[in-house]
Amino acid sequence: MDIVCLDLEGVLIPEIWVALADRTGIAELRATTRDEPDYDKLMAFRLDVLKKNALGYREVDEAAKSIDPLPGAADFMAALRAQYQVIILSDTFYELAAPVMVKLNHPTLFCHRLDVGQSGEIDGYTLRMTDHKTKAVHALQALNFRVFAAGDSFNDTGMLGAANAGFFFMAPDNVIADFPDFPPVRGYDDLLAAFADAAKA
Amino acid sequence: MDIVCLDLEGVLIPEIWVALADRTGIAELRATTRDEPDYDKLMAFRLDVLKKNALGYREVDEAAKSIDPLPGAADFMAALRAQYQVIILSDTFYELAAPVMVKLNHPTLFCHRLDVGQSGEIDGYTLRMTDHKTKAVHALQALNFRVFAAGDSFNDTGMLGAANAGFFFMAPDNVIADFPDFPPVRGYDDLLAAFADAAKA
Repeated sequence: MDIVCLDLEGVLIPEIWVALADRTGIAELRATTRDEPDYDKLMAFRLDVLKKNALGYREVDEAAKSIDPLPGAADFMAALRAQYQVIILSDTFYELAAPVMVKLNHPTLFCHRLDVGQSGEIDGYTLRMTDHKTKAVHALQALNFRVFAAGDSFNDTGMLGAANAGFFFMAPDNVIADFPDFPPVRGYDDLLAAFADAAKA
Repeated sequence: MDIVCLDLEGVLIPEIWVALADRTGIAELRATTRDEPDYDKLMAFRLDVLKKNALGYREVDEAAKSIDPLPGAADFMAALRAQYQVIILSDTFYELAAPVMVKLNHPTLFCHRLDVGQSGEIDGYTLRMTDHKTKAVHALQALNFRVFAAGDSFNDTGMLGAANAGFFFMAPDNVIADFPDFPPVRGYDDLLAAFADAAKA
């Protein structure tokens, strides 16, 4: 009995903070871990930028509503869910992902939470746990599931390594080069075929 | 961060074997654990009845396709998934539940598997694990989720007891009487309200 675990941003939807930067016109929100490798500092910076621009939960939600799944992602998810159980493992926040999850037909999502105050101000964030993707794969395997996984970035490699079969999907060349054990896959049809091959093993 | 775990049969859909008995006209398939308390013996009997009547996977799947969610269940699931992550924990089999899961919009389902041979004959079944509902709740809690649960029967009481809040939904009076700790709820709106109260705690 098989479960597919998928990363969200870069696999099914665009990078959310980049999309929010585009929607709000605030270029500083485009900062990524390449600009600030310390995630806590990066998030403090992002939340500070939101506050400076008087963007609370309502404004961020409004911007998030205009994020669409990547081309083909919704059809891919429909095909995938006809064959496998699927759980999305992401390091984003429920509040940012909620609108686009509706467009993907509400797959189960494990991620983190923003701390939203009474008047809608975003006060901080709560990581559900560190390295939760790897731990979720192990938990599912302990429940006697085989797990196939796909992601596009460094924060997916724990999940890919723990899975019974793990694939890079649309990953940058430097990420692929650093982890030669994970076969790189570039299109949704090829990813479905990769999972089908893994399921036959 | 909250996950709702729901039993399937009796909560979102009718009892599958009873529905298969109705669809195929084979009354013997209506047998339940009340007739044969030993689950292995009951399943051996059911699979023997299928074989005697030359019903393989294709015929069972055809009958299963006519099973509909209980009235209001699809709307309830839509409302639930707008507010919580949801995982269905059931002791049915993927092969029997698959068609009605499509009608419920593909929620994630943890259950068991029928052993289907090359020519579609149903040779046996594979339980993913014993008491998997309780173990799934514990696994989700270890991933730092709060878990709210609802079910209608004795095989749900481990899940309800493990959950941060557990409710009987449309349970028979004798089940409710045996487990007075689990508040009984009778309609989908009341179940949504019960989860909302639990989430406030």
